[in-house]
Amino acid sequence: MLTLDKIYHASYVLKNVIRKTDLIHAPKINPESEIYLKTENLQITGSFKVRGAYYKISQLSDEEKAKGVIACSAGNHAQGVALAAAKNGIKSLICLPDGAPISKVEATKSYGADVCLVEGVYDDAYNKALQLKDEKGYTFIHPFDDENVIAGQGTIGLELLDQLPDIDAIIVPIGGGGLISGVAFAAKQLKPDIKIYGVQASGAPSMVVSMESGKIECLDDVSTIADGIKVKEPGVNTFDFCQKYVDEIVTVTDDEISSAILALIEQHKLIAEGAGAVSVAAAMFNKVPIKGKRTVCLVSGGNIDVTILSRVIKRGLLKSGRSDSINIELMDKPGQLRDVSRIIAELGGNVVAIHHERASEGSDINGCYLRIVLETRNFEHKMTIRKALADAGFKIVE
Amino acid sequence: MLTLDKIYHASYVLKNVIRKTDLIHAPKINPESEIYLKTENLQITGSFKVRGAYYKISQLSDEEKAKGVIACSAGNHAQGVALAAAKNGIKSLICLPDGAPISKVEATKSYGADVCLVEGVYDDAYNKALQLKDEKGYTFIHPFDDENVIAGQGTIGLELLDQLPDIDAIIVPIGGGGLISGVAFAAKQLKPDIKIYGVQASGAPSMVVSMESGKIECLDDVSTIADGIKVKEPGVNTFDFCQKYVDEIVTVTDDEISSAILALIEQHKLIAEGAGAVSVAAAMFNKVPIKGKRTVCLVSGGNIDVTILSRVIKRGLLKSGRSDSINIELMDKPGQLRDVSRIIAELGGNVVAIHHERASEGSDINGCYLRIVLETRNFEHKMTIRKALADAGFKIVE
Repeated sequence: MLTLDKIYHASYVLKNVIRKTDLIHAPKINPESEIYLKTENLQITGSFKVRGAYYKISQLSDEEKAKGVIACSAGNHAQGVALAAAKNGIKSLICLPDGAPISKVEATKSYGADVCLVEGVYDDAYNKALQLKDEKGYTFIHPFDDENVIAGQGTIGLELLDQLPDIDAIIVPIGGGGLISGVAFAAKQLKPDIKIYGVQASGAPSMVVSMESGKIECLDDVSTIADGIKVKEPGVNTFDFCQKYVDEIVTVTDDEISSAILALIEQHKLIAEGAGAVSVAAAMFNKVPIKGKRTVCLVSGGNIDVTILSRVIKRGLLKSGRSDSINIELMDKPGQLRDVSRIIAELGGNVVAIHHERASEGSDINGCYLRIVLETRNFEHKMTIRKALADAGFKIVE
Repeated sequence: MLTLDKIYHASYVLKNVIRKTDLIHAPKINPESEIYLKTENLQITGSFKVRGAYYKISQLSDEEKAKGVIACSAGNHAQGVALAAAKNGIKSLICLPDGAPISKVEATKSYGADVCLVEGVYDDAYNKALQLKDEKGYTFIHPFDDENVIAGQGTIGLELLDQLPDIDAIIVPIGGGGLISGVAFAAKQLKPDIKIYGVQASGAPSMVVSMESGKIECLDDVSTIADGIKVKEPGVNTFDFCQKYVDEIVTVTDDEISSAILALIEQHKLIAEGAGAVSVAAAMFNKVPIKGKRTVCLVSGGNIDVTILSRVIKRGLLKSGRSDSINIELMDKPGQLRDVSRIIAELGGNVVAIHHERASEGSDINGCYLRIVLETRNFEHKMTIRKALADAGFKIVE
């Protein structure tokens, strides 16, 4: 039975282990609300997960500690468990599917865990972890459906009420639901009128679907760039907490998440991973009723692969009207490139790349395609340039 | 005459205007030292510049305030002045060369400044600003060579001694020298044995050259990705402060700066601009004697254009052995692509892109080029893969 006492105890245990991460005012994220960012992406290990993992491990018996712990994760939970175990002076083994990115494997090792690469996908690694737990007597550290893990995450709720006592609402990412369970429980115990909003990726809405049907549902297929919350099924405990303490759960698309990641980079110089940015996306795109409210977006983590980051930046620029990619079908006669360039330059567009290809399949034998990538100010600017090209007789194709 | 009193006064004036930015432990930046990051990239406007600009403007007479201020900058100083003027309720005009990036112009406007785009380069905009100052009676806000501006930047020194009293050294970026002048003065007044190290870009070493020759030198040509410190000539005051209070000034290359930006993204989820990352680069690449010392790297700003950021990420990955781009000259016969792919896969390289081109100029008429971009673990891994390909008879060309 989770109590506020236990969360205070977790806070005490974590005091000299974790960072009390900064709360940063973010007025531009949603001008109609007063937004603050809780920067758990700046937490040690790059995510909030170390809070729950550390508190859970700290509460094991000496016998359990002597045998060590095991977990299954390719992400933040792995790094949290690895660091928490190392700081408690005990051994940890992390099972990962063998297709996990090099960067994740290296990061997990660097925090002091042994890594067991399991052939197959996540479920295979999970089954292997359970098997090793039984064989070797390791304690399995669940990523979310565990009372002590939830208590650890709940310490963020206490911090928020300390950092911003007159807070009206908290927006929290949901994967399995461990984070929101702890935060909602802590915050509502202390300030019952606070609103707690959950956010899932639209490609992995397991808690939304479960809440709607009133029982835990398992999704067959989940897909989102927010891999940290790509979870098929809520936990038994976390589902219960969400039913009791969460006011509303909404979803955001991958494009909205990309825009939020880009906004955090440009406006706040912060790297968030997809899962960490969903709370910001929900605020940016008015998914939750926060008008005029003092609202905290919990930015839960920042562990995003830099190659994915590059792609997200590109996508975010495109989706926010800050870049455009225009395909023009030209007749193959002199001066056309000059005319196109002139029109774009006169309107203040900044050409970043040009691809010019003659007689591709499907085009007139005398025609060619010109693909132009350019930086634009906003959607209006983008449409002005497209219209000017069309008015000059150029055929824009998609 | 700058005094500690004045810096304390600046601190008082700035108290409810700026953020007391977080100091973050960064153990992996240099394992032989104890590194902390002073995150002025998380300052409002994305850089420390608002401190000096605000304090300077706050100290103007009512008459001066009524006329407004003018500055010339395409970067952080522009945004600092714009916001500082707006918060003081006065008008600001920022002169920019007309080639300035759209994002910078928009950001400056968004903080409330009027923008005057001047045909030409920085020097033209600067001359225009001086002309307007004389014509209209605006007060010119110098980006660095001004006692009140320096006092404002010096408040960072006070904060650091409060946040980490037993600090041994501070590493500070140098462009014109305003930041290091204030920080060094404040820190050495309070803790005379503290070491202050300055860092410039190797393509813009104006303070280094001036210190060596014992008088202010003006460089003909400066070039670096760290545009925030791309300054041709130190100030009269700042040169004097550096001579008196700075222990050593070193330089870092653009590649080292890129690696530092990447390290800040991956390890600390922070976006730094080139100028903001030079202090971290100096620590990473052992340019300054900080072994065993409690050292703060001042991350001065985070305003980097996202398209440049993408390029820096690519460069940083390449330079740290985390990605490789291999050009192979193949004979045009079946099975070669398969063999190359197999070798790379067996050694754990992760192919990101392939470009396969037949009979390009300069190659054998039956030959073709294969360019493979892949993710690698480190330099050793990269060389292992290259060696395996060469051993299998493939010709790697540069």
